[in-house]
Amino acid sequence: MRDLGVIPAGAMLVRDGRVELTGTRAEIERWVSADAEIVDAGGRIVLPGFVDAHTHPVFAGTRADEFEERMQGATYAEIAARGGGIRSTVRRTREASEAELLETARRRRVWFARGGTTTIEAKSGYGLSVEAELKILRVVRDLAADGKLRYVATFLGAHELPDEYRSRMDAYIALVVEEMLPRVAAERLAEYCDVFCEPSVFPPQKARVVLQAAQRLGLKVRMHADQFSADSGSLLAAELGAATADHLERTGPAGMEALRKANVQPVLLPASVYALGSNTYPAARRMIDLGLAVVLATDFNPGSSPTASMPMVLSLAATQLKMTAAESITASTINAAYSLGRGGECGSLERGKWADFVVHDCDDYRELPYFFGRDPARAVYTSGTCAYKFSEY
Amino acid sequence: MRDLGVIPAGAMLVRDGRVELTGTRAEIERWVSADAEIVDAGGRIVLPGFVDAHTHPVFAGTRADEFEERMQGATYAEIAARGGGIRSTVRRTREASEAELLETARRRRVWFARGGTTTIEAKSGYGLSVEAELKILRVVRDLAADGKLRYVATFLGAHELPDEYRSRMDAYIALVVEEMLPRVAAERLAEYCDVFCEPSVFPPQKARVVLQAAQRLGLKVRMHADQFSADSGSLLAAELGAATADHLERTGPAGMEALRKANVQPVLLPASVYALGSNTYPAARRMIDLGLAVVLATDFNPGSSPTASMPMVLSLAATQLKMTAAESITASTINAAYSLGRGGECGSLERGKWADFVVHDCDDYRELPYFFGRDPARAVYTSGTCAYKFSEY
Repeated sequence: MRDLGVIPAGAMLVRDGRVELTGTRAEIERWVSADAEIVDAGGRIVLPGFVDAHTHPVFAGTRADEFEERMQGATYAEIAARGGGIRSTVRRTREASEAELLETARRRRVWFARGGTTTIEAKSGYGLSVEAELKILRVVRDLAADGKLRYVATFLGAHELPDEYRSRMDAYIALVVEEMLPRVAAERLAEYCDVFCEPSVFPPQKARVVLQAAQRLGLKVRMHADQFSADSGSLLAAELGAATADHLERTGPAGMEALRKANVQPVLLPASVYALGSNTYPAARRMIDLGLAVVLATDFNPGSSPTASMPMVLSLAATQLKMTAAESITASTINAAYSLGRGGECGSLERGKWADFVVHDCDDYRELPYFFGRDPARAVYTSGTCAYKFSEY
Repeated sequence: MRDLGVIPAGAMLVRDGRVELTGTRAEIERWVSADAEIVDAGGRIVLPGFVDAHTHPVFAGTRADEFEERMQGATYAEIAARGGGIRSTVRRTREASEAELLETARRRRVWFARGGTTTIEAKSGYGLSVEAELKILRVVRDLAADGKLRYVATFLGAHELPDEYRSRMDAYIALVVEEMLPRVAAERLAEYCDVFCEPSVFPPQKARVVLQAAQRLGLKVRMHADQFSADSGSLLAAELGAATADHLERTGPAGMEALRKANVQPVLLPASVYALGSNTYPAARRMIDLGLAVVLATDFNPGSSPTASMPMVLSLAATQLKMTAAESITASTINAAYSLGRGGECGSLERGKWADFVVHDCDDYRELPYFFGRDPARAVYTSGTCAYKFSEY
């Protein structure tokens, strides 16, 4: 994870939206045809676009009020108990029209781009009814339609119990398995299925029911695991052969060993630890030492992680997870791409892959976690086409 | 500090670069003349520009390499002992020409603006020779010349002992007092004098010599105090009637009480705690409870705080210092302006003050610390003139 294959004074030849050749500028210039469009990065670093492998980008409203209450001492559990938390976003997201949700999500999409992200895993989970979950997944599909950024959709119907199913978990699980999942699969609205697996939310035996049903329908599996308690989530992820187990703030040696044996990738979300005002960060260094292909993601959502910035995540990975810049860039590009089944298409600038690349306002890649709290991307390209160009004074 | 005087659906009349009237849109519209220029904030929040009261914005190079070493376990002291730290920036800053320093500092100036800052306290301290210190202060003067952002200059000759004065502290103090300070005062290059007061850097008895000499020359005093050890810095700040005591991560009850009695404002720098990978944050809540007029600032510098973003500082103030959004906005606007002797001119949008204001991409001021890791400013005005306008997709 420490070898980025940096090419000093590098260049890249792109044809038909894909990388044809990378090398030094002198090597590449020999192959440039007269009618080629030249993009001059001005000596700045060019990186593959970040692949943000865990986000919840479609929701109505904010939870800036709860954020402030939490910082003043209210716990996440207390806020949830009086109808706040995920359920308050669910109420607003249900009320919003599909067009409103799309407009809001499009407005926030630029935040990802400003940080240099080109591929976004996008979960549903603020609908929690058949129609509202499908509505969110259609918004994800429509976000992807103009090709500016790429989306990979994940169905997260089992994110929380909705108000009308309080103390009726089995009935809600039945709704997810019997109605939501078949519709999602039939309409091909998601590639992955996720569950918030936690003894206090959806315990492993319930999560298993949902995820196995998803697998029977051809969906692949990612999981919210071990955020508040150890190992039951990671053990289930290993048992089911999930692509990823996400969060892992409480995962112990047994959970890590299970992930390693089953080749499940850990997706670490330090921004949500930070924004919850917690200090319980996942044991990234131990996971890397075990050889796990660690992924970093924003967890962008209105409750625990209101940031869409991968550079912010890289900063937290440095200061809190003690990862090097090279490790965190690997974790948020090529490792993340593999976790989404896109390892052959993006996550690195290699021959044949999509030309998804970003010019950052940095002289050295190590400046990405170092100069923190800013938006470094100057230009964002997907399939070789400029999707966003940001002004610079 | 919790009352921002928010005007919902507000408007403001500006004349000759100053605020003439604020109120609801209906109230203001009655006074708008036919030839007035209308700036429509589109329902977004408008704030007074942030006043960043502690920065080191003029330096050559970065220390991204040391940042990474520190995250891997090297201590600040170890890095300093082998010639790294402040001294490595000093070597590069001495070598750089005045024009080079100005160009680099201008390039980084936009980072402050993107966060919504309009006034910047700027310290020297990476020169540590007569000529190099004066060079830095001239760069600060030249940064201010175009009026895009405001600067308040602080002379920090006693920032560290330069290589050629190792174990000759008294000789260096003499250089600062007898040569640097008189030149700085004669050329009117700084309004304040600061010292890095710390038993292991410049102990109080040495800091006192420098600061009293500065006071005799008509400079006001700010101080680096109690960053690594308790109270000796804050006690000296109180004794000298300093405008501010900055850092205060280790200040105890005696130091706080001394600050309160002497009316010294605490300037808290949570971004440097964060970027050092530390968890020892200053006791902001206790200071606020004592009635101290707390200030927040970035401490922008290449070693301990490579961020120029006040919104990032507001985020850290929420998650780590447990300050509300209103408290942290007060701390970074009006309280900060008073700490720089500019309380009558900026820091709030009140009749007669400079029309230094910023349109942020937020519907509610509480989104500033909440949506973190991004640059929220869309348009930055100083004296009623648009200094920066940032594109939005």
